[in-house]
Amino acid sequence: MDLNHLKTCATIVPSSYVNLAQQSWMSRNHIFQHLLNHKKIPDEGWNECLVETFLSELSQLDSNNLIGKCGAGEREGRIYSDIVARRNYRFSHGVGRSGDVTAVQPKAAGSSIVNQLCSKLVLDFIHQAGGTTAKSCIIVPMATGMTLLLCFLALKSIRPDARYIIWPRVDQKSCFKSMISAGFEPIVIENCLVGDELCTDVDAIQKVIEKVGADSILCIHTTTSCFAPRIPDKLEEIAQICKDKEIPHIVNNAYGVQLSKCMHLLNQASKFGRVDAFVQSCDKNFMVPVGGSVVASSNKDNFLELMASTYAGRASAAPAIDMLITMLQMGRNGLKNLLSERKDNYSYLREEMRKLAEKHGERILETPHNPISIGMSLSSLVDKTADVTELGSMLFTRRITGARVVPLGAKKTIGSFSFQGYGSHCNTYTCPYLTVAAAIGMKREECDILVKKLDKTIICLKKRVSQSGSAEISEEC
Amino acid sequence: MDLNHLKTCATIVPSSYVNLAQQSWMSRNHIFQHLLNHKKIPDEGWNECLVETFLSELSQLDSNNLIGKCGAGEREGRIYSDIVARRNYRFSHGVGRSGDVTAVQPKAAGSSIVNQLCSKLVLDFIHQAGGTTAKSCIIVPMATGMTLLLCFLALKSIRPDARYIIWPRVDQKSCFKSMISAGFEPIVIENCLVGDELCTDVDAIQKVIEKVGADSILCIHTTTSCFAPRIPDKLEEIAQICKDKEIPHIVNNAYGVQLSKCMHLLNQASKFGRVDAFVQSCDKNFMVPVGGSVVASSNKDNFLELMASTYAGRASAAPAIDMLITMLQMGRNGLKNLLSERKDNYSYLREEMRKLAEKHGERILETPHNPISIGMSLSSLVDKTADVTELGSMLFTRRITGARVVPLGAKKTIGSFSFQGYGSHCNTYTCPYLTVAAAIGMKREECDILVKKLDKTIICLKKRVSQSGSAEISEEC
Amino acid sequence: MDLNHLKTCATIVPSSYVNLAQQSWMSRNHIFQHLLNHKKIPDEGWNECLVETFLSELSQLDSNNLIGKCGAGEREGRIYSDIVARRNYRFSHGVGRSGDVTAVQPKAAGSSIVNQLCSKLVLDFIHQAGGTTAKSCIIVPMATGMTLLLCFLALKSIRPDARYIIWPRVDQKSCFKSMISAGFEPIVIENCLVGDELCTDVDAIQKVIEKVGADSILCIHTTTSCFAPRIPDKLEEIAQICKDKEIPHIVNNAYGVQLSKCMHLLNQASKFGRVDAFVQSCDKNFMVPVGGSVVASSNKDNFLELMASTYAGRASAAPAIDMLITMLQMGRNGLKNLLSERKDNYSYLREEMRKLAEKHGERILETPHNPISIGMSLSSLVDKTADVTELGSMLFTRRITGARVVPLGAKKTIGSFSFQGYGSHCNTYTCPYLTVAAAIGMKREECDILVKKLDKTIICLKKRVSQSGSAEISEEC
Amino acid sequence: MDLNHLKTCATIVPSSYVNLAQQSWMSRNHIFQHLLNHKKIPDEGWNECLVETFLSELSQLDSNNLIGKCGAGEREGRIYSDIVARRNYRFSHGVGRSGDVTAVQPKAAGSSIVNQLCSKLVLDFIHQAGGTTAKSCIIVPMATGMTLLLCFLALKSIRPDARYIIWPRVDQKSCFKSMISAGFEPIVIENCLVGDELCTDVDAIQKVIEKVGADSILCIHTTTSCFAPRIPDKLEEIAQICKDKEIPHIVNNAYGVQLSKCMHLLNQASKFGRVDAFVQSCDKNFMVPVGGSVVASSNKDNFLELMASTYAGRASAAPAIDMLITMLQMGRNGLKNLLSERKDNYSYLREEMRKLAEKHGERILETPHNPISIGMSLSSLVDKTADVTELGSMLFTRRITGARVVPLGAKKTIGSFSFQGYGSHCNTYTCPYLTVAAAIGMKREECDILVKKLDKTIICLKKRVSQSGSAEISEEC
Repeated sequence: MDLNHLKTCATIVPSSYVNLAQQSWMSRNHIFQHLLNHKKIPDEGWNECLVETFLSELSQLDSNNLIGKCGAGEREGRIYSDIVARRNYRFSHGVGRSGDVTAVQPKAAGSSIVNQLCSKLVLDFIHQAGGTTAKSCIIVPMATGMTLLLCFLALKSIRPDARYIIWPRVDQKSCFKSMISAGFEPIVIENCLVGDELCTDVDAIQKVIEKVGADSILCIHTTTSCFAPRIPDKLEEIAQICKDKEIPHIVNNAYGVQLSKCMHLLNQASKFGRVDAFVQSCDKNFMVPVGGSVVASSNKDNFLELMASTYAGRASAAPAIDMLITMLQMGRNGLKNLLSERKDNYSYLREEMRKLAEKHGERILETPHNPISIGMSLSSLVDKTADVTELGSMLFTRRITGARVVPLGAKKTIGSFSFQGYGSHCNTYTCPYLTVAAAIGMKREECDILVKKLDKTIICLKKRVSQSGSAEISEEC
Repeated sequence: MDLNHLKTCATIVPSSYVNLAQQSWMSRNHIFQHLLNHKKIPDEGWNECLVETFLSELSQLDSNNLIGKCGAGEREGRIYSDIVARRNYRFSHGVGRSGDVTAVQPKAAGSSIVNQLCSKLVLDFIHQAGGTTAKSCIIVPMATGMTLLLCFLALKSIRPDARYIIWPRVDQKSCFKSMISAGFEPIVIENCLVGDELCTDVDAIQKVIEKVGADSILCIHTTTSCFAPRIPDKLEEIAQICKDKEIPHIVNNAYGVQLSKCMHLLNQASKFGRVDAFVQSCDKNFMVPVGGSVVASSNKDNFLELMASTYAGRASAAPAIDMLITMLQMGRNGLKNLLSERKDNYSYLREEMRKLAEKHGERILETPHNPISIGMSLSSLVDKTADVTELGSMLFTRRITGARVVPLGAKKTIGSFSFQGYGSHCNTYTCPYLTVAAAIGMKREECDILVKKLDKTIICLKKRVSQSGSAEISEEC
Repeated sequence: MDLNHLKTCATIVPSSYVNLAQQSWMSRNHIFQHLLNHKKIPDEGWNECLVETFLSELSQLDSNNLIGKCGAGEREGRIYSDIVARRNYRFSHGVGRSGDVTAVQPKAAGSSIVNQLCSKLVLDFIHQAGGTTAKSCIIVPMATGMTLLLCFLALKSIRPDARYIIWPRVDQKSCFKSMISAGFEPIVIENCLVGDELCTDVDAIQKVIEKVGADSILCIHTTTSCFAPRIPDKLEEIAQICKDKEIPHIVNNAYGVQLSKCMHLLNQASKFGRVDAFVQSCDKNFMVPVGGSVVASSNKDNFLELMASTYAGRASAAPAIDMLITMLQMGRNGLKNLLSERKDNYSYLREEMRKLAEKHGERILETPHNPISIGMSLSSLVDKTADVTELGSMLFTRRITGARVVPLGAKKTIGSFSFQGYGSHCNTYTCPYLTVAAAIGMKREECDILVKKLDKTIICLKKRVSQSGSAEISEEC
Repeated sequence: MDLNHLKTCATIVPSSYVNLAQQSWMSRNHIFQHLLNHKKIPDEGWNECLVETFLSELSQLDSNNLIGKCGAGEREGRIYSDIVARRNYRFSHGVGRSGDVTAVQPKAAGSSIVNQLCSKLVLDFIHQAGGTTAKSCIIVPMATGMTLLLCFLALKSIRPDARYIIWPRVDQKSCFKSMISAGFEPIVIENCLVGDELCTDVDAIQKVIEKVGADSILCIHTTTSCFAPRIPDKLEEIAQICKDKEIPHIVNNAYGVQLSKCMHLLNQASKFGRVDAFVQSCDKNFMVPVGGSVVASSNKDNFLELMASTYAGRASAAPAIDMLITMLQMGRNGLKNLLSERKDNYSYLREEMRKLAEKHGERILETPHNPISIGMSLSSLVDKTADVTELGSMLFTRRITGARVVPLGAKKTIGSFSFQGYGSHCNTYTCPYLTVAAAIGMKREECDILVKKLDKTIICLKKRVSQSGSAEISEEC
């Protein structure tokens, strides 16, 4: 509706009623204008109606939705199912253009604006979350693993002779896969045990560089967010090395946007050393369905441009749409609340887990540098492997999907690589344990339920074990 | 609702009314059961209500939607925005598992079933469309270009020393990018002109293989669906060469599922030669938004397994959801109608374009081997480059986005490669031309509008040109 | 979005792309403006997106949706459930104002516009459907029966001493109830049998008026649309009497808008006699859910104003919203097609029923003045009451809910009134029969299915009867 | 989905994942079963997904949605617009049957269940809200005014000779209209001023009864919820009189369900005297859009049956659907919270208004018997009529729609009745005033905004007045 419509409305109902609405109508226009001008997350989250109106208006700018369009001759832009059309707000052209995932699509002005706006808002999100040195970012409609792979391919175009990626070990399959699927050979740097914490072995990295030569190294691939007892890599020192040796540096910051400590590490590393890009998952930081990731950089665009143009073809707009909706509804205030709630929940859950550990003769692993994940030893279980595994499966059937048990001595082969003690980020950890994370969006009540259910399940397991697992007992618990 | 609910309903309203509904209720259950058992596109398309009920029920199987779940400790599965939750049917876990995009996700039984079912239905779709030799397929939540890239990376793991990809030229940027972004060196095979058609130079391929050696070749990368005057590659002969020389063969069948000729070519090539996989776009064949593609194979799974496990991490479920909805609503009958309508529209549009060409002293390019695209010469324009370009821009501003003009002599550089005559699939074509496609989903009326608008635009351009483009004239048309 | 937004968009994507969209954006604005100016059904139906945008914009004019509103102190306008808010487009104030159901509600400019527009569009609909003499109409959010009751109450305020309503018998419960619930005494005029048709006994009406006196009569309450073998009342003659005697005349035109014959009758009656108002059902003519009706008049507003101000309080906006959506999506062309399809289906169904009747030794009742309903004798059934009733119940369990069987001799008491031969509109019809209607929205295929199922069911019934209804047989059919 | 579907799912994904979901699936079934068995508001509100699934399943029981239905011959049940179908959950048959709005509709088992369930849940809601003596209730898809009218018509059928309705004055137009539109003559009982409160003049009622005779009185029509300084009628005393004199008693409890005081009054009146029915608005108590009301009774069904059968024809299902959704989402806990929040907000708002009054030299009217509405004197305004009216219009343009100003001496004519001091419930109140209500759903923050805005507006008005309303000043405020 425009002002002429409102004027005509005032011929249908008294103009004083329409005038009242006109003030509100101008407020709404102002809200839209402000977003388009400033491209930042609004202070207050938008209501559903505003968000849907905005998307619907943008979607009208795409050629498949133009009134008076001539669709014949086109091979695309037709949506068969009305359900599909509605759930995609009638956006059908995806994002990007054949050679560049961030390029504007001539047939899809609206989709392109969604994508451009979304990346600006994500940048603002990162700033709000503490990543103050970030200069630009792009949304990639692939999850973290594939996006890391794309980073490596992008680097390859400028370092054609590099073969190796230096990688401080973190036992998460996708990030390992990303290197071997891209055709590189990971050089695994085992972690050092300091107290309970598993830390980066910076010396080992330096030795490796000396050994294989900086030119043969595609990049160093570090990790910030991870499960305790592993802690974030020593980003500052590694970034310094990368700067000195002119080796690219890619950081897997999977769920680190929600963690001010990780963002601080990235800031420091970017200021004083070299960080080409840091990659984060959309679902784990922005509370959207799995499917997208964000590549950010503290340099002005160089690596990101390279990366965007490495992407071959267009891509799904779905992650950008989900992200844009979410940030508009969340608002800066909503984001701030989520971040501070998370921090509080972490402290609370840690304390409750500590009490639980004490009750069962266990202890919380001392990992002060890991700001999200809490490890609890499982030393008192009789059979350290079978019982720990059994506990894991009992938790799963009790619908506790967020606690992960790590027995000692698990082996795993990925491609041609074999890992000892897989899951614990080192060949032999000091004890089996379980970990839980205090992630964004979790509620205080959930912490209590988790601890209570963990307690019950451990009691139940111990009963079973002590009574040889008789059926009667297992029924009871 | 189950039978007990219906029984209780019969205490609220007379049981005879409920009995009537119970028959229908059982019919619905039977429809669901039939789909789950047979995993084929239903004969008759489902109505919206059935589709949404089915998706909603599957979504209830995902851990984030379980009643009584304990979400604490998890880093994922929370959706901030209700809008986002609804538009994704509350699916939040994506598809795949860290190492394999087709793997079942333990936390997401429902999402996994959507993905598995979807790929079975796509296989059925391919069969119905004439691709009878296809044995299996997977949905990849990336568009065609990135999916080709992933195919090449997958092949690399089994041919680590290969450097080249043999590629009969087709002037489409994504497919070229897919090779160089994956780190390979394309060997471009220029097309031969036969009549108006641009055909594969099979001899040149053989010479190249002899020259560089089969082992250094990652694969031959051919194309079926393309713009006239290029025609589908000689798949049978190339597949025979691939079989003889043990060179993998990847086919870009971008929008070829809708074309029985392309599917027939693939059948023949698969039967008598070697085809490792053929890749098709979801949006161009299945009428869904851009974002996914299908990799199919006539071998039982070998290459597809390799490919799936090359994908690093989970992926967006959005393309699979859109595809599943579409195929359920379309039904086999709907699909058949669409395919035959398309064929009829092609003949009709070709004939109407022929009349248009005649009227303007032009001619239709004779490309009987191209089953979808129609080329019309633009020889009568005075300034063959400027006027052709002007025509393109006039069509765009008249909202005719499906006609593409190709002037002579365009140059284009992609990476370190330079192309002459870019857009025409050869260095120098015989004349400038425009092309239109008769694609799936187009309506008969659209053909008429297109031809009418083309006619008007050409007349207008010629007037402008003959009158030195005076402003008065251009206003008029 | 307004023009400033579009300008800003052109800083995000190239302005040529935005310009393309701007043309379309102006077309959309023009469509809205045209509707607001002319208040007529658009020639071409709107797509879903246009309709939802329009409603959403109007809803923003209601005070509960105003940005910056202060809701405190209010007792209303809050919607608890988001589902409810969404499905009502966030309209919450209903329509009307305490004393008048058509009055504009100061707190709800948007809802009021919906209601005003809707009644203008309905008037246009009536005109298109042939009711050319209609001058105005209102939407009442109650079904036909209650709306007739409200008409009678409205008349009472100007004829306080009237006690009787003259009513040519039609066996439909709601319309009879409407009179007694309103506190009046119906004087039932039995129909005359002419051939197979049951027609108005105009003489009897005149005699009654002479007997009780015109002043004691609230109105004559006639019926147009009805089940065969009853035919529409002789509206012209009755309207002439009403004019002469100054007796109000209310016409129950329940599903007559779809019937050009009924609309013609109303035109003639309005031109040459007196018709105060004619009442029609929303669901039966406009294909919306049950819940609203339309009161129309060929006089300029007098009776309708009285009627609107008789309504006590506000009312649900739901029927107006459903109606507005439907008319916008249907368009004049859609409406015309529906009306002509219906006419064709009536002829077709009549012919198919004739063949069916012949096959079973029955005949179609000759009721050329009834344009929608078709009666088929059921004379060949052995037990004219039990078997006819059994047939009815067999049809119901076979999900044929649109065929109605009428046995002879049914009795019915409503209030203190007793009817003989209830269902057949007369005390003793010549034979039992079944009726079906050919209503708006029915598809040709449905006619075939109906006749086929009727055939099967009659065969099955006859088998049962001839074999004493043995269980084995009944299982089979 | 049923158990067989789940078993088949376990052939697609590992059965352990399906087993996990099966527990949840059974929980959901149990929730549905519990509701169908007990027909009470669930303790915990349902999430959107549960609610929508439930409605969608019920809707499948309606004949228009049956798989294999034969719709031909029907005049109804077809919905033209998909938007309309979706927003009505494909319910199309409305509720009720021609003669009875609570009757089950054979073609619509699902709609009928919605309606039956809804009325049971509303009864539970009333019980939870303190109306413990209520025995049954029905949902009427008309707002309060029309529903009161229907009550009066229902009573007429059993008291055919009654002409009068005794009505203690309350200045609300709909309830007055309900009596005159139904054709009765209201006998207005003016209120007594006791302190600031306006109370029922019970003596006057008794005198009137003696004068006109009990038989000529249709009923006494009392009011509970109302604007201060009027307070709820003396229900107990009046109910006692009604019992003694055998006069029916209808209570307008418009927004009284949210007020424990009103519910207590009704309980007492029902226990010790006669209350035939009490009527309440859906929108004002249950937070749904305007359109429905609830008639409840503490007797077992007698009056309600009469009332339901007075309703002529079917009716819109929309109010019942909105109500059912709302109560399922709210849950008992949600309801309790809303009720106690309201009480707290009333106290808070009263206290804040007291401070505001003091600041401006005004006072809060002492009306301890009115539990929802707060009156503040406007004695300090210079021109008691013009300035008070001006204040009202200033509040409206500032989007404060919930504060109502009442000048002295307003006159109003409704039908043939004239009221002095209209708006203040008495001919001459002691001072002009404004009222605000603390209604269900209001938030604490809203109270603060209201008081702040009131403060500013009064200051602004006083400035204008003192400076002869010069334009410069009025701009400022």
